[in-house]
Amino acid sequence: MPIKEFNTVSLIRKKREGGVLSREEIQYLIRAYTDDEIPDYQMSAFLMASFLNGLNTGEAAALTHSMLHSGIVADLSHVKGTKVDKHSTGGVGDKLSLILAPIVAACGVPVPMISGRGLGHTGGTLDKLESIPGFTVDVTLDRYKEILEKQNLVLVGQTEEIAPADKRLYALRDVTATVESIPLIAGSIMSKKLAEGIDALVLDVKFGSGAFMKKHEDAVKLAETLVGIGEEFGKETIAYLTNMEQPLGNAVGNWLEVKESIDCLNGGGPDDVMEITHLLAGTMIYLGREAATIEEGIEKSHEAIKNGSAMQKWIDIVEEQGGDTGVIIKPESYPAAKHIESVKAEQGGCITAMDAYAMGMVSVELGAGRRAKEDDVDPAAGFILHKKIGDKVEKDETIATLHTNNRNMLATAKTGIQQAMTIGQSAPETLRQITHRADKHGLHKYEG
Amino acid sequence: MPIKEFNTVSLIRKKREGGVLSREEIQYLIRAYTDDEIPDYQMSAFLMASFLNGLNTGEAAALTHSMLHSGIVADLSHVKGTKVDKHSTGGVGDKLSLILAPIVAACGVPVPMISGRGLGHTGGTLDKLESIPGFTVDVTLDRYKEILEKQNLVLVGQTEEIAPADKRLYALRDVTATVESIPLIAGSIMSKKLAEGIDALVLDVKFGSGAFMKKHEDAVKLAETLVGIGEEFGKETIAYLTNMEQPLGNAVGNWLEVKESIDCLNGGGPDDVMEITHLLAGTMIYLGREAATIEEGIEKSHEAIKNGSAMQKWIDIVEEQGGDTGVIIKPESYPAAKHIESVKAEQGGCITAMDAYAMGMVSVELGAGRRAKEDDVDPAAGFILHKKIGDKVEKDETIATLHTNNRNMLATAKTGIQQAMTIGQSAPETLRQITHRADKHGLHKYEG
Repeated sequence: MPIKEFNTVSLIRKKREGGVLSREEIQYLIRAYTDDEIPDYQMSAFLMASFLNGLNTGEAAALTHSMLHSGIVADLSHVKGTKVDKHSTGGVGDKLSLILAPIVAACGVPVPMISGRGLGHTGGTLDKLESIPGFTVDVTLDRYKEILEKQNLVLVGQTEEIAPADKRLYALRDVTATVESIPLIAGSIMSKKLAEGIDALVLDVKFGSGAFMKKHEDAVKLAETLVGIGEEFGKETIAYLTNMEQPLGNAVGNWLEVKESIDCLNGGGPDDVMEITHLLAGTMIYLGREAATIEEGIEKSHEAIKNGSAMQKWIDIVEEQGGDTGVIIKPESYPAAKHIESVKAEQGGCITAMDAYAMGMVSVELGAGRRAKEDDVDPAAGFILHKKIGDKVEKDETIATLHTNNRNMLATAKTGIQQAMTIGQSAPETLRQITHRADKHGLHKYEG
Repeated sequence: MPIKEFNTVSLIRKKREGGVLSREEIQYLIRAYTDDEIPDYQMSAFLMASFLNGLNTGEAAALTHSMLHSGIVADLSHVKGTKVDKHSTGGVGDKLSLILAPIVAACGVPVPMISGRGLGHTGGTLDKLESIPGFTVDVTLDRYKEILEKQNLVLVGQTEEIAPADKRLYALRDVTATVESIPLIAGSIMSKKLAEGIDALVLDVKFGSGAFMKKHEDAVKLAETLVGIGEEFGKETIAYLTNMEQPLGNAVGNWLEVKESIDCLNGGGPDDVMEITHLLAGTMIYLGREAATIEEGIEKSHEAIKNGSAMQKWIDIVEEQGGDTGVIIKPESYPAAKHIESVKAEQGGCITAMDAYAMGMVSVELGAGRRAKEDDVDPAAGFILHKKIGDKVEKDETIATLHTNNRNMLATAKTGIQQAMTIGQSAPETLRQITHRADKHGLHKYEG
């Protein structure tokens, strides 16, 4: 069906005046932009008008649709079962994908997971996977389907064929101060997730100092928009609002996080990591129809850890994608960073707050992340936190251990960690890890 | 002095968040854009953010300053007297420049007038001047100064050397739906006017169906912004809010308006034209220090018509700029359009309203104006109105006479004029021709 033509200036003006664009109008804008018929300067004016006047869920869904169909949408009909993925809006120390993907796959739900790289203060699942020697995340579409069919799981990176319009729009937003728009962010996320060929989706929408959405209310809006778009595409979508006021777990840095994930799959790991992991995994198992309720899904998730099936799935997928299973089975064999140094508390008291954003930037300084897209990452770099919010600390007690191959950054990183932790006299109110669930019925306070 | 460098994305973000940019920040944006360091797509995002979040008078003045100094600013210090110009925001049948410029110059005030061409529903002074055979509006800067010194008057077009940044920005605004922003419009007008080398300025800000500002409140804001910018540059600026609910005078079209102007300079002409002409001319004479008050300036304006000095000045300037004075002295010798046809009233009653915009578009159809910048205009095309708002009309009485060389357009134009005039039963309230004056002391209701 040929796409209807519109006058671009009129469409920009309509959004400028606060109007609502039709699906056809948005389709025209994205198609013509991708085909170089609309120049960057018109698209950036439209993006700024959309940023300031907003896009409703219908417009965001139309945008998602157009970006999705600018590229290939995987057909996974050859794989039996209800395919479910999880997406996180990103945070510091967020290694949940590495733990929940093998759990869910071990419980019989196919998990086709296409992830991204880290940029700025947050890490990326691909960088974590690539810290495993030999692990390859670059595969063809055919190989992607093959791995999924064989392992019930695939963990790869985005190819050029997926949502190219989103890639181009994102690059334009990046240089025109139009990134932080909730419907534009939602459209970008959903166009890439829907291209995977999923049937249902779980979203981990983070709020707080280490998240992209610092304010809880913005995270709520994003969660609702994401769920709205998912439902418009007929994909059952459940989002949780989770806390990113401090790094998730103790490890921050690529291999350090893989190592912590292995602890988790072996039945250990930090409580905050496992609480959210089981909730998200349980929800995926429920959406994948291997559990009648989310609660039953959570029980199955616990069971997959206990009976070792999740760990076995993790070893299988590492082997399938070319990774060295030796370091998975024996993590202490992994080559450590050259410099490992402790950070001491400058005073005694109780940790009352953390600046998770600043901590994420410390991990970048140590070599674990990227300031710019073209930067390399050091798989061994990062830090381990020994204290979390609410913990008591003595003066000169070790609060963190830094790992780096760049000794020049040690001093700054130490100060960075110290300054990012606020030590007060009395314990703060307990942080709620998970505040809300958003689904097709609306927003619900999470009482978990 | 080197201009300070800023991060462009941060400046766009600042405006997006509703912040106020410093003079240096705006200076950087315009300088870097003009030097091709900032691409169109960043400038268009900034323009849309400015459109939606506004620019205050200080920002508009900084924008004006940067655009002004992107090109040449004429130095008129060799010309004695206080140089005063008038600018109109444009309307249908607005031939006031042709009448008041010779009046004011005849009264001893130098008038350096750089005008534009018509586009869309409004005509342009340059097109009107060029309907006089031989009249040239394209002169060098030296010749511009020479004509002014010799004649106390110069009527020319904008050269490439004047405010090139404005020209470029305007072209970008035109394709990104960011034209109709009051501070951007004000900056564009003032950068061109200040480049003329003026000491003071009178502004005719029009409101109503035939004006760019349809709403009175928008016209008020524009007038206040223009006056604010003028005063920031130390140029005394007085603006009047005048009515454009119907065409000004009776003639619409290039030569037809020159002809009506000649009538006016000969002591005739329509009352609405002469009321505003004398007010604007009197204000210019006052600002040019050839009258102690605006009232005295208005008296001098009347006197310049009565004693023939204004008409003589008009003949002199036409001759100076290469025009045929024969058609000025004997307008009936001008070659008429091939087709001259009457438009009749379809019913009797009283003219209660006009759509001046639609009438302007009828004149374009007849050949008098441009749809696009590259179109040619027909000097003889246009129409004469025989009725104005408030006039009684009989069924089949002639309400207008069309002049065109394109007979194909006659039928549409007739219908256009008929539909643009509303004939009702009772006379409407008298229109206020001039509603307010804005000057450095604020906005005043005009009681003239």
